[in-house]
Amino acid sequence: MSLIDRLSQQFVRFPGIGARQARRFVYFLLSADKSFVDELIRNIKKAHDEVLQCAVCFRYFETQNNGGFLCTLCSDKNRDASVLLVVEKDADLDAVQKSGAHSGGYFVLNGRLPLSGEGKSFVRLPELQERLRKEAHNGLKEVVFALSANPEGDYTVLELKKALAPIAQENNLVFSTLGRGLSTGTELEYSDEDTIKSALQNRH
Amino acid sequence: MSLIDRLSQQFVRFPGIGARQARRFVYFLLSADKSFVDELIRNIKKAHDEVLQCAVCFRYFETQNNGGFLCTLCSDKNRDASVLLVVEKDADLDAVQKSGAHSGGYFVLNGRLPLSGEGKSFVRLPELQERLRKEAHNGLKEVVFALSANPEGDYTVLELKKALAPIAQENNLVFSTLGRGLSTGTELEYSDEDTIKSALQNRH
Amino acid sequence: MSLIDRLSQQFVRFPGIGARQARRFVYFLLSADKSFVDELIRNIKKAHDEVLQCAVCFRYFETQNNGGFLCTLCSDKNRDASVLLVVEKDADLDAVQKSGAHSGGYFVLNGRLPLSGEGKSFVRLPELQERLRKEAHNGLKEVVFALSANPEGDYTVLELKKALAPIAQENNLVFSTLGRGLSTGTELEYSDEDTIKSALQNRH
Amino acid sequence: MSLIDRLSQQFVRFPGIGARQARRFVYFLLSADKSFVDELIRNIKKAHDEVLQCAVCFRYFETQNNGGFLCTLCSDKNRDASVLLVVEKDADLDAVQKSGAHSGGYFVLNGRLPLSGEGKSFVRLPELQERLRKEAHNGLKEVVFALSANPEGDYTVLELKKALAPIAQENNLVFSTLGRGLSTGTELEYSDEDTIKSALQNRH
Repeated sequence: MSLIDRLSQQFVRFPGIGARQARRFVYFLLSADKSFVDELIRNIKKAHDEVLQCAVCFRYFETQNNGGFLCTLCSDKNRDASVLLVVEKDADLDAVQKSGAHSGGYFVLNGRLPLSGEGKSFVRLPELQERLRKEAHNGLKEVVFALSANPEGDYTVLELKKALAPIAQENNLVFSTLGRGLSTGTELEYSDEDTIKSALQNRH
Repeated sequence: MSLIDRLSQQFVRFPGIGARQARRFVYFLLSADKSFVDELIRNIKKAHDEVLQCAVCFRYFETQNNGGFLCTLCSDKNRDASVLLVVEKDADLDAVQKSGAHSGGYFVLNGRLPLSGEGKSFVRLPELQERLRKEAHNGLKEVVFALSANPEGDYTVLELKKALAPIAQENNLVFSTLGRGLSTGTELEYSDEDTIKSALQNRH
Repeated sequence: MSLIDRLSQQFVRFPGIGARQARRFVYFLLSADKSFVDELIRNIKKAHDEVLQCAVCFRYFETQNNGGFLCTLCSDKNRDASVLLVVEKDADLDAVQKSGAHSGGYFVLNGRLPLSGEGKSFVRLPELQERLRKEAHNGLKEVVFALSANPEGDYTVLELKKALAPIAQENNLVFSTLGRGLSTGTELEYSDEDTIKSALQNRH
Repeated sequence: MSLIDRLSQQFVRFPGIGARQARRFVYFLLSADKSFVDELIRNIKKAHDEVLQCAVCFRYFETQNNGGFLCTLCSDKNRDASVLLVVEKDADLDAVQKSGAHSGGYFVLNGRLPLSGEGKSFVRLPELQERLRKEAHNGLKEVVFALSANPEGDYTVLELKKALAPIAQENNLVFSTLGRGLSTGTELEYSDEDTIKSALQNRH
């Protein structure tokens, strides 16, 4: 196989990229300035070397060469230790941070549980259990499951609640999930029954 | 202009129909069975003759030849008189009814107020004012504004609240709006800040 | 079933219309001016009464109350009798007429043959055979199959050629099909192999 | 700016990639196996080092460490020297090669001329002129402009023909363009007038 083909096949593994666009990426790189490509390579290398996963919340963060293994959020003593938000992935955490609506801790779950029960799951359940046990002694009161509002997300929350019930009971932890209702931009006519029910229950 | 062109131009005025599809409608009708077309004409005629607008909630309903001017919902004495839901249009009312989440009264507003303040509006404000005054004596306690979760819907709710404030104060009526949050099917990553904020506030 | 439901169900049978849009059509008609609805009914009725299928090309046309059964194209003596264009439906004929690129006769086939061979077909093969036999004595030299550039269209052309071969041979008729190549707006990169081959063969 | 942000901004410059997907690329790389990332870096580096632009047709090709500066197509003595196909970019050349419909030479133009006449153009006109002069002595008879079937493509062909006219006249070269017609998958009803005209002219 040619180098162009091999590189195309690597780009096909990028999220949302098909064979045709992968090939366009290769031609784009071939015609790009040497300085752009050099910097791209340098940044990818640096990202793999210098970006670590936080030992507490598991999100990716850039080390400040201070030898620490905690991200800026987890090492910030001013954040509210009583509420922990469980999200599926880093991009979800970014979105919540941008909203400024949460001042507590985070935990990146690494995906959802497959509905079928089959298939390998990378969900960090043991790590979450350990986190709850530890944080319970540091003032944790509430765990908010901020997962996707779809069947897989709902199923994952259900299973997490089951698995974490003993720890919660022992430590007086409360579970909660994000409120459902009308998302910005939606019309009643096109909303499903569950969304309408939640929107009515959560009226204010 | 030919008859085919004239009929096409009428179909173009149907919601969501462009010139090409309008023409396909004409050819569809030309090749349809005579019985289908006859029934279509009969139904359209009947709809205009026998479907009335309810004198109370303004939704469309079919008369039962009982001489009444109230729809089945407004003439149902078992519905909760303490809550009134204001919706933009019939299709929204249908969606709420289908959800089974509201057992009170309805009021069809007939659209939203244009953000610019300009443009003719068909919103039934005087009729809503009259309705509130009357219902206040029949046990009405809460008016739920169930409008679209978009700028125009928010602006309309704001203006309605202003215009209805005197009546509300006089009669101890409470205003509320539908809860915002994650709609079924949405992911955190793709949600805007307002939706995330509401979802966190409405967590349960 | 309610009248609104029955009318919705009729609109669902219109080409490209789903349940939700059908219902919007009903509400649109209910809120429309009486004059608009009256004219719509009148036009639909007139269309069914006054629009006929041409006895020669089978396209729909409006009678001029002259008792004729031929459309304006088929009754126009100045059109080129040597070339006959076979199209699938009226809208295709309209598109060709608008291009001004064909000055001969037309024949509306009424659809394509299903690839599976199964399923009822409404293709007017006997009528086309009769047409060719007649026109062959009036100077017809070429039959152009102007069908869709897709597998069903290609299959239909193949079957028509087989079925019409004896008549063609007997009367020295030539068969042809529309040229393939780049349609306006297409790029080479996104074109399939057949289109590129045809575009190269038809280069000029 | 953080490393994650900087890398995201580089991916945004990839063709067809927005800010959100760029960020997903970064998280994808962070969570990818080290071996995948190492190979990606190695391949990108190799591509820039070992993939050259052919000195004759300007397409990208991988050197075989034989010291040559010609791609496999340009160094193949069996290809037809009488026809030269001018394409906009490598991906177009790939598409033509895959169709197997062209056995002659290629020239990668590097884009199209902007319709406005403004804007920097990277079109290789001087190189094409030189190529035609040389090839004319090696049996070249026809130059096929295989550009996009859109206004910019048509305009570029027009300008190229003007600029190359003296060389063509001097050397008895013929110019041609790809045939227009129905692309695979298109229906007559949705085709523009030019496409229908071409399809009728190119009927066979």
